[in-house]
Amino acid sequence: MEQNGKHINTLIVGVGLIGGSFALSLRRCGYAGRILGVEASEENGRRAVELGLVDAVVGLEEGIKGADLVVLTTPVDTLPELAVRVLDMVGDGQVVIDAGSTKETLCEAIEGHPRRGRFVATHPMWGTEYSGPDAAQREAFAGRNVVICEGERSDKDALALVEEIYTEFGMPIVRMGAEEHDLHTAYVSHISHITSFALALTVLEKEREDQHIFDLAGGGFESTVRLAKSSARTWVPILMGNKYNVLDVLREHIHQLQVLRKQIERDDIEGLVDSIHKANSIQRIIK
Amino acid sequence: MEQNGKHINTLIVGVGLIGGSFALSLRRCGYAGRILGVEASEENGRRAVELGLVDAVVGLEEGIKGADLVVLTTPVDTLPELAVRVLDMVGDGQVVIDAGSTKETLCEAIEGHPRRGRFVATHPMWGTEYSGPDAAQREAFAGRNVVICEGERSDKDALALVEEIYTEFGMPIVRMGAEEHDLHTAYVSHISHITSFALALTVLEKEREDQHIFDLAGGGFESTVRLAKSSARTWVPILMGNKYNVLDVLREHIHQLQVLRKQIERDDIEGLVDSIHKANSIQRIIK
Repeated sequence: MEQNGKHINTLIVGVGLIGGSFALSLRRCGYAGRILGVEASEENGRRAVELGLVDAVVGLEEGIKGADLVVLTTPVDTLPELAVRVLDMVGDGQVVIDAGSTKETLCEAIEGHPRRGRFVATHPMWGTEYSGPDAAQREAFAGRNVVICEGERSDKDALALVEEIYTEFGMPIVRMGAEEHDLHTAYVSHISHITSFALALTVLEKEREDQHIFDLAGGGFESTVRLAKSSARTWVPILMGNKYNVLDVLREHIHQLQVLRKQIERDDIEGLVDSIHKANSIQRIIK
Repeated sequence: MEQNGKHINTLIVGVGLIGGSFALSLRRCGYAGRILGVEASEENGRRAVELGLVDAVVGLEEGIKGADLVVLTTPVDTLPELAVRVLDMVGDGQVVIDAGSTKETLCEAIEGHPRRGRFVATHPMWGTEYSGPDAAQREAFAGRNVVICEGERSDKDALALVEEIYTEFGMPIVRMGAEEHDLHTAYVSHISHITSFALALTVLEKEREDQHIFDLAGGGFESTVRLAKSSARTWVPILMGNKYNVLDVLREHIHQLQVLRKQIERDDIEGLVDSIHKANSIQRIIK
């Protein structure tokens, strides 16, 4: 194991896919120091210790006391209140971050907090369709971007520590306002999940026999429907918390499907070819 | 290389992703014999020889003469006419197959042909979003199902040879009627491509700055949008050739998206949770 020599006592609040992967990544990058966890689910807490994600599970107050870094990785609807509660308890040497998929509500909630500077709002652009401590991965995050929102509202030393950790994780840093973040993640990330949920519902509705789905599912269907396994506990708060941006992009998506439908209905081959050529241009951005 | 000792002279008509991969798979499984190619594009023909997919490129008539097996892997709109033309030229010892994604029109076109028995209609459930000879893969097909349609209309020896080859490729065989095949592939495979094209169009429409897409694309977006790179030359004929089934499932898909949209619009958390739970059940079928 690489030893970067840095000693950081970390508290992970919510030791699931993201929190657990964060803990494993700290170890992977050779950070020393205790890693403690706070877990609402007793079962997940026990599993997180068994898997070696955290050294022990503790209460929130107790955990915060000795922590240099507090990482909030609970569902996004819990974050604004939790962030305020945690900031109420931290002192000058401590840093708090979150890893949530929406940012505006959270940033607003902590905006006037006397300890706002100790908080760094982050969104590592990594995840899988699985959840819970068993889904945590040691090689998570590496090679993906991390968005840091409103970095100018964080204290310099707090921001520096967080940037250093994400850089060690192998994540290029992108800076954005919270409002801007929520708009663009709706357009790129949140809509993919809705597409995939809707595709699964469509296939399950039309295809009453599982055997046919099983027989005919090629690699294409599997990759397109993969995100439909994602958890409601994670995604309902993200979609509701980013409601207006999500509705905006969803309206456009339904419109695009209606255009394709009309082209097929009307034997508009030329139009359909044009649409597919236009869609193909996504490859100039995504390898 | 495994040597199964079987000597089959093969002619591949259309040496792209599927035809090229078929040739490589024959070699992988140790089949001996010449593999010749017929290619409408001079450039692709030259490339197919350079890559060692086929030993040489020849004319259709010339190629058929010495072939034990003729594999038709051109776009589906060309298959009915091509299949008839090829059947006109083959004799008793020869076998013709296709690998197209739609089957009804093709099977109808050859239904009354005096040589119908020499034809085996197949659809290996494998593909990628890339096309052309450079996209061909040696490890293609293995582990995926292959559908054989109307096997009862093929001569026993022809069917036996084709089943043996696909079994060597590592493909479980599924039997289906042509009409049934087109219905179920629309539901499972064709709709995935439309979803993905529409997602790419949506993101490109809403997100005018490529940099934002690039910055925020996590693994989720990439896997959902992957199929949007698929070629119009391949997919327009599939979608148009399976028009009524495709429109039927597309209508359902738009409906499902509208239901999700309404749930988000009306803060119907309970409904949204139910929808996602229902969508999650796709994991009982797809690992």
